[in-house]
This record gives sequence, C-alpha cells and structure tokens, in this order.
Amino acid sequence: MPGYKLQELADEVGGILHGQGNCIINKVATIHNATSDSITFLANRSYRKYLKGTRAAAAIIIEKDLESCPVFAIVVDNPYLAFAKISAKLNPMSKIDAGIHASAVISTTCSIHKSASIGAHCVIGENTVIESGVSIGPGSVIEDNVHIKTDSILLSNITICHGVVIGENAILHPGVVVGSDGFGIANDQGKWIKVPQLGSVVIGKDVEIGANTTIDRGALEDTIIEDGVKLDNQIQVAHNVKIGAHTAIAGCTGIAGSTTIGKYCAIGGASNLVGHLEIADKVQLTIASTVTRSIKEPGLYSSGTPLQTNAKWHRNFIRFSSLDDMAKRIRKLEKSIDRK
Amino acid sequence: MPGYKLQELADEVGGILHGQGNCIINKVATIHNATSDSITFLANRSYRKYLKGTRAAAAIIIEKDLESCPVFAIVVDNPYLAFAKISAKLNPMSKIDAGIHASAVISTTCSIHKSASIGAHCVIGENTVIESGVSIGPGSVIEDNVHIKTDSILLSNITICHGVVIGENAILHPGVVVGSDGFGIANDQGKWIKVPQLGSVVIGKDVEIGANTTIDRGALEDTIIEDGVKLDNQIQVAHNVKIGAHTAIAGCTGIAGSTTIGKYCAIGGASNLVGHLEIADKVQLTIASTVTRSIKEPGLYSSGTPLQTNAKWHRNFIRFSSLDDMAKRIRKLEKSIDRK
Amino acid sequence: MPGYKLQELADEVGGILHGQGNCIINKVATIHNATSDSITFLANRSYRKYLKGTRAAAAIIIEKDLESCPVFAIVVDNPYLAFAKISAKLNPMSKIDAGIHASAVISTTCSIHKSASIGAHCVIGENTVIESGVSIGPGSVIEDNVHIKTDSILLSNITICHGVVIGENAILHPGVVVGSDGFGIANDQGKWIKVPQLGSVVIGKDVEIGANTTIDRGALEDTIIEDGVKLDNQIQVAHNVKIGAHTAIAGCTGIAGSTTIGKYCAIGGASNLVGHLEIADKVQLTIASTVTRSIKEPGLYSSGTPLQTNAKWHRNFIRFSSLDDMAKRIRKLEKSIDRK
Repeated sequence: MPGYKLQELADEVGGILHGQGNCIINKVATIHNATSDSITFLANRSYRKYLKGTRAAAAIIIEKDLESCPVFAIVVDNPYLAFAKISAKLNPMSKIDAGIHASAVISTTCSIHKSASIGAHCVIGENTVIESGVSIGPGSVIEDNVHIKTDSILLSNITICHGVVIGENAILHPGVVVGSDGFGIANDQGKWIKVPQLGSVVIGKDVEIGANTTIDRGALEDTIIEDGVKLDNQIQVAHNVKIGAHTAIAGCTGIAGSTTIGKYCAIGGASNLVGHLEIADKVQLTIASTVTRSIKEPGLYSSGTPLQTNAKWHRNFIRFSSLDDMAKRIRKLEKSIDRK
Repeated sequence: MPGYKLQELADEVGGILHGQGNCIINKVATIHNATSDSITFLANRSYRKYLKGTRAAAAIIIEKDLESCPVFAIVVDNPYLAFAKISAKLNPMSKIDAGIHASAVISTTCSIHKSASIGAHCVIGENTVIESGVSIGPGSVIEDNVHIKTDSILLSNITICHGVVIGENAILHPGVVVGSDGFGIANDQGKWIKVPQLGSVVIGKDVEIGANTTIDRGALEDTIIEDGVKLDNQIQVAHNVKIGAHTAIAGCTGIAGSTTIGKYCAIGGASNLVGHLEIADKVQLTIASTVTRSIKEPGLYSSGTPLQTNAKWHRNFIRFSSLDDMAKRIRKLEKSIDRK
Repeated sequence: MPGYKLQELADEVGGILHGQGNCIINKVATIHNATSDSITFLANRSYRKYLKGTRAAAAIIIEKDLESCPVFAIVVDNPYLAFAKISAKLNPMSKIDAGIHASAVISTTCSIHKSASIGAHCVIGENTVIESGVSIGPGSVIEDNVHIKTDSILLSNITICHGVVIGENAILHPGVVVGSDGFGIANDQGKWIKVPQLGSVVIGKDVEIGANTTIDRGALEDTIIEDGVKLDNQIQVAHNVKIGAHTAIAGCTGIAGSTTIGKYCAIGGASNLVGHLEIADKVQLTIASTVTRSIKEPGLYSSGTPLQTNAKWHRNFIRFSSLDDMAKRIRKLEKSIDRK
C-alpha cells in the first residue's frame, strides 16, 4: 500500500480539500467499512444516510454533502470518478516480472520485447509481435501473426487467433477468445457449407474485455473494436461488427453479424441485437433489450415486459397472443359508440 | 461398478423394499433401457405408462405406483431424490491420484497437501493453499493467495484469480473463471476510467459451478456465494453479488452488480437481474425472466411473452407499442358508455 | 494464395461463365474492396447498387443482374452458396504439421494416428483415440476414453470430457467444453443433492461448434448432436438434448435438458428453450425467442416485444401487467353495447 497525503489525492482529482492535507491515506473503502487510514466516497444517494456514521479519515463528496460529513472531505463534482482516480493511484496494477517463463512455447519467428512478460504454459505463434510492457497470463495461446501493442495485459487461459491486432493498454480477462471464426454458413439443399472467415479483428487502445467474452473475426473484412470500448463478461461479438469508441457494454449481450454500434453508447446487460443494424452514437439500452431495427437517434431505449407473480403474469401472457384482436375490438367499439 | 444388494440400497434411502433384498444391483438406468442388473425410477408422471414394460431388476417409486410395478420396488416419498442417492452410491466419483504432475508450474511459496492432485500444465501461484483431497484439472491456473479447501474438485482449463476462497467439496467444471475483475467503470467526459476491483470472491462449501460460468471479484468488498449454491453453465455473476445458501440457478442467467439473492431460491435459465436488487428467500423465477425491481415475498415469478407463428406474433408485437393508448381508449369508452 | 482460372471456378459451382475463362483469380473480396485479381459476389439485394462500381475481375451473380454487371460474371441460382464454395477452394484450411508437440502430455494408453497433430501443452487421457488427420490446438485437454474421428479440427484451450465421441470433419473453436456434467440436482429438504451424470455426448460428422459453447453430458443416456449441425458461440446445450441433423443455431442460445430439436431447424440467436420439449423439423425461430411449449409444425416462430424509447416503452410496459383486465373490460364493453 503506497500511502498518500490527503492533499496529494485532492490535487490528483482537482478537488477542494476540507481538512488536514498531511493526513495519510492508505486505502479506499466503503462508507461502512472505512477505517482511520481510509478514504471513502458518496456517489449513490441512497447511501447518504450512512455518511454521518463513517469512520473514514476522509470522504469524496459533492459540495452539498459537506455539511453532513463528519470527517475530512474532498469536494468534487463527480465523486465516483474522483474515487476511481484516487483508487487507481492507491492501487496501482502490480507489475509482473519481465521475461518468458521456461515452460512457454515460443515460435522462432515471433518478436517479444524484452520488457514483456510471458506466463507459464503460454504458446506464442509464428511472426507474432508482442510489444513493450505487455503481459500474457499463464495458459494463454497467441496464434500466428498476432500483434499486441504496448502495455496490454492479457490474463490467463486466453486465446488470440491468427492475425488479430490488439491496441495499447488493453486488458483482457481470463477465458477471452478473440478472432474465432464468424458463424458464416451457406445453405446447400438443406446442408450447411462453411464460408471461410478471412477477415480479422482489430482492437483499438484502452479496450477492456471481460471474462469468457468472444469476438469473432470478420468474413471478408475485419471486426472492429474502437478505442476505449469496455466489454463486460460473456459478451458475444459476431463477425464484422463494429463497436464505436468509448462504448460500454454490460455482460451477456449478443451482437449479431455486421451490426455497427456508434460511439459513446451504453448497452445494458443481456441485450441482443440482430445483424446488419446501424446504432447511432450515444444510444443507451436498458437491460435485456432486443433490437431488431436500426436506431437513428441518441437516447434511452428499452423492450420487454414486467415481472409479476406467475399467476398474474400467466393471465397477461395469454392475452398477449390476442393483442391485435383486442386493438381491433376497441376500434370497433369506438365506431359503434360514435354511431349511437 | 461396485454392485449392491437391493436391501442395502433401500436402507440407504430409508425406503420400503418390496422384493428380494439379496438381488444384486450394478447400475441405474432409465425405464426404457434398464436391464436385469439395473435399478430404475419413476419421478416424472408422464413416464408412468412405461413402468409396466420395464426390464429393470427394481424400480424406485411412490407407494401408489406399487400396484402397476412389474418388478421389485423400493417405495419412497421422493423417487428422484432416492435415485440421486442410490446413483451416487453406485457411481462414486473416481478419485484422481494424489500428487503434482511433473509439467505443473508450482510457486515456491504455495502449500499443497500431499493428498491433493495437481494436473498436467497447471499453474499454482504464490502463497496459495490447496487443502487435502483437492483435485485441480489439467490446464488450470490458480493465481496467488488463493485458498481451496478440502475435497474440492476443479476440472480442466479453469482460472481462479488472486485471493479467491473456495470452500469444501466444491465442484467447478471446465472453463470456469472465478475472481475476474468486476465491470467497474466511471465516466470522465465520455471516456471510461477503470475502477480498481479490490474485493475478492468467497465461495462456501458444497458449491457446484457449471462450465464457462464467470464470477467477478468485488469492487471494495467481496462477492459471496454461500454454502450449497448450485450454478449451471454460462452464468455471469457480477461484482458484489451475494447468492444465499442452497439457491440453484440454471444456465445463461446474468446477475448484475451488488444484487443479493436469498436462500433456497430457484432461478430459471436465461434470467437476468439488474443491479442493486434484493431478492427474498425462496423466490423462484421461470425461464428468461427479467427482474428490474427487488422481490420481497417468496413465490414463483415470471416475465415475457408467448411464442407464436411469426405472422401472428408480429401483429401483436406491433400493438404492444400502443398498449398504453389502448388502455386509455378503453377507459374513454367506459366513461362514454356510463354517460349514456 | 493458390490462384485459379475463372473457368475452373465456374465449373466448381456449376455456373455459367460470362467472360474470359483463363482470367486468373487469386482471392475473394467484397464488392467495395475487390481488386483486379478478385472475385466478388452479390447476394444481398441492398448491395445491388454497388455492383456497377466494383473493380473485381469477376462477380458471382444471378442471371437478372448480368445486365448491370460491369465485369466478368459467373451466373448461378444461389450466389452466396457459390461464393462459399469458391472461397473454400481459394482459401483451403491450412494444414497443421502432423506430430505430437514435445510439451504435450500424452497417456500411455491413448491411440494417436501418425497423421494427427497434437499442439503444445495439450493433455490426452487414457484410452483416448485420435484418428487420422485430426488436429488438436494448444492448451486443449482431451480426457479419458474420448474418440475423435478423422479430420476433425479442435482449436485452442478446448476441453473434451471423458467418453465423448466427436464425428468426422468437426470444427471446434477455442474455449469449447463438451461433456461437462449436466445440471442434475435433487432437492432434499431444501438442500441440493448432485445426481451423477452417467451419459456422454455423441457428436455426428461435419459439426461446427463456436467459441466458448458448452455441451453437457447426459444424465443416464447421451446428449446427441447429429450430422451437419452448426452451433455458433456461447451456446449452452444441457444434458440429454438432441439436436437433429443440419440444424443451425445462432449465438447465446440456451437449450434446457432433454429437449429435442428437429432436423433442418434454424434457431435465432439468444433464444431460450425450456426442457423436455419436442421441436419439429424445419422450425425457425427469430432472435431472442423464448420457447415454453413443444412446436409440432414447421414454420417461423417468434416472441418478444418491440424496442421503443424508454419513456414510451415504460408506459406500455406498465400496462402489460393489466392486459388481462383490459381484455375483460373490452368484453364487458361489447356486452354493454350489444344490450343497448
């Protein structure tokens, strides 16, 4: 734990310090569990009632909570963002030792920078380039002709297929697969013929990809993940999808082939998008949205039905099948009333 | 195949034997495929018609099926449960030989009990503790400071991230990831900043986790999986989720961050729960339920719409967009009728 | 790149050549990116407008596009299928060198054909049979008593559990798990008892399985995947499911236990099927369909609600909870009108 003076932390986030700047902070903590060397934060309004009981050394808050804050404070506009920055300062990612583990299997033609770290039982293919500061976790397989750029961190048991490009500062969590074949099949009198998947995947810088997420290679051109995209766990990105810069997608979402998602979008978990759509910039979807048409305007979109007790739900569920009939009967009633 | 006398099996489950107790049973089988050294069972009423044709040596049944049972019988209240116990007796899990495979990469500071089994190409990190009787399958990566308790079985190609605790008698199936970073991101003028994920995952005893399921570590505190929880394949458990004891969750379900699920719940497959919810004990969800609010009472809950032919469905699907309008028009019609 | 004469490609697909048969084609490309040694194709009508601007050497088209085709043409009935075949000819799968990598851990009792390829850090169990031409990618674990038939390709970090049979010409993408235990649990006064999973998985020939897809072994009998089935990424196939020949299933779909899907079906992505259903041959489901009853007739089926802006959706979402009440009020209004 490095430990920083409270003033240094306030300066880090451009906040206004209320309290003693030389107080030493060793860690971040929740309002409930903070101790006298901790800094906490208040971002979710429902936790405001707990602020007065905190035993933290200091809290990151907005100005209007200053009055009810019993401890030192760093006042900012966005406490969650300031907390993220302060936590990152207090908890730097542990640097793995440079070098290639003796058990790794390295092709003779790959290029691995001397500052890179290759874990136990990794396999690195022909002509693959691993740049400076890159870390590849144990059990990962990096196929031929892959290019992984500076300071990217790949964790354990990851597979990167041939030809994939991963930009600077990526973080890929365990079990990720990038560059598997897209689901390209053509029907030949009932039987399916495989369509060769000849594109690749190109991932920009500052991208994070969650555990067991899969990103398929393009059919003829590349699947594209732009800078700053954040993908949660167990997401499926099909061939030739393009995800615009700084879009965040929550877990279990599936995106079908050739769909383009704009920049600065926020896609709720378990959403599903059919193929060949265009989703505008700054679109937000709530959880489990199903998208079957392109979205041309920014905004918040949703689909789905409410949860009810099974008994109540079932009566409504049944009626859904005759919704069109109900609409027609309302129209008929209206006409009938008008006539009277 | 060990082979047991029928009386021993009846005693095992506290059932009443009808038939010869010294009949030798070697295996369990379905009603259709049972042979003269097999025991079968009748749990699903739709199979009752097949009972009379079975060629099993014996059947596990409820009392009222005794009359129509053509073979020896063990009568119990819950045939499926008795079958599970008898099958477990007839099919004990094969014990893997103790010892560390020569190809495994073991840190100098980890502690591995002499009765544990570490498979080929495993990687075991610093200060990790592997207790007695634990088996780690080939290709698995156990990072630093992990604690895996007595008799837990981890199968192949699993990743357990740093600091995770796994209780006694766990079974983790291939491809599972436990302790990957939660999806914590803070928005900084459109760009996303990573929030360090400083908690861990603590798993109780007797927990089973299905293939390719992922469980993220907590942001500040731990993600908690209590005793006896059973998770199917491809489930996503986000950071700081808490799953209460003896809850079972079917495949493809996603649980967003900080949601608490009670004890003795049964969650249908492909369900999705948004974050920060509280789900009471003994809640059951049917398949593909989407939960956007806390559930305070035990019971069976559902959401979703019926499957129809595409043509019929589409007409109803379209009408859903004007459901509120339909409701208002009904109200207006009612007022109009009342006035006449 | 091999390079073929245009006439050879036309012959390959039984197409009619319009142009110079000795023109050399080196690659396939999109209409937009094709160059003078490329062949392109027009399958999606929305791309027709771009045909006249292509710089390909030739295009695969239907007869009625011949007039507007500015380059040589191969005329066929199904351009996408012909493209798939021509692309496969121009892009043969690269053959991995036969042999067992020195780092692989091979049991003494397995049988590996001399033409098979076993990648780095693979683990091959006891009595497992690997036939001719099979390729197993790095980091894969093939347990005991598995049988992998001729020319099947398993990519990296795959787990095949004990006793599984994989037919000829299969392609399994990274992270696939076949033969994990089914989710069989019996309730014993609130606690769950594991039901031993004693069946296996039997996969026919010409099957493709996408990245991180999981297929569980059967409880008493086998889970069956018939010939020519194509599974996309992140699909969950539960125990004792049977998928009929030549059925294709898109990503993120979940199929619960003992459900039988017919032959020649096409299941849209993110669909969910409850257990113990029978789905007829030639059933098609659109994206995110939830299936809770058996389907007896071929045809196209759907479920779900439309995406709307959150504000509009929420008003309709709320009304869904009183759909049954709305239907009753319509009936009452109709009776009331009739009486007047």
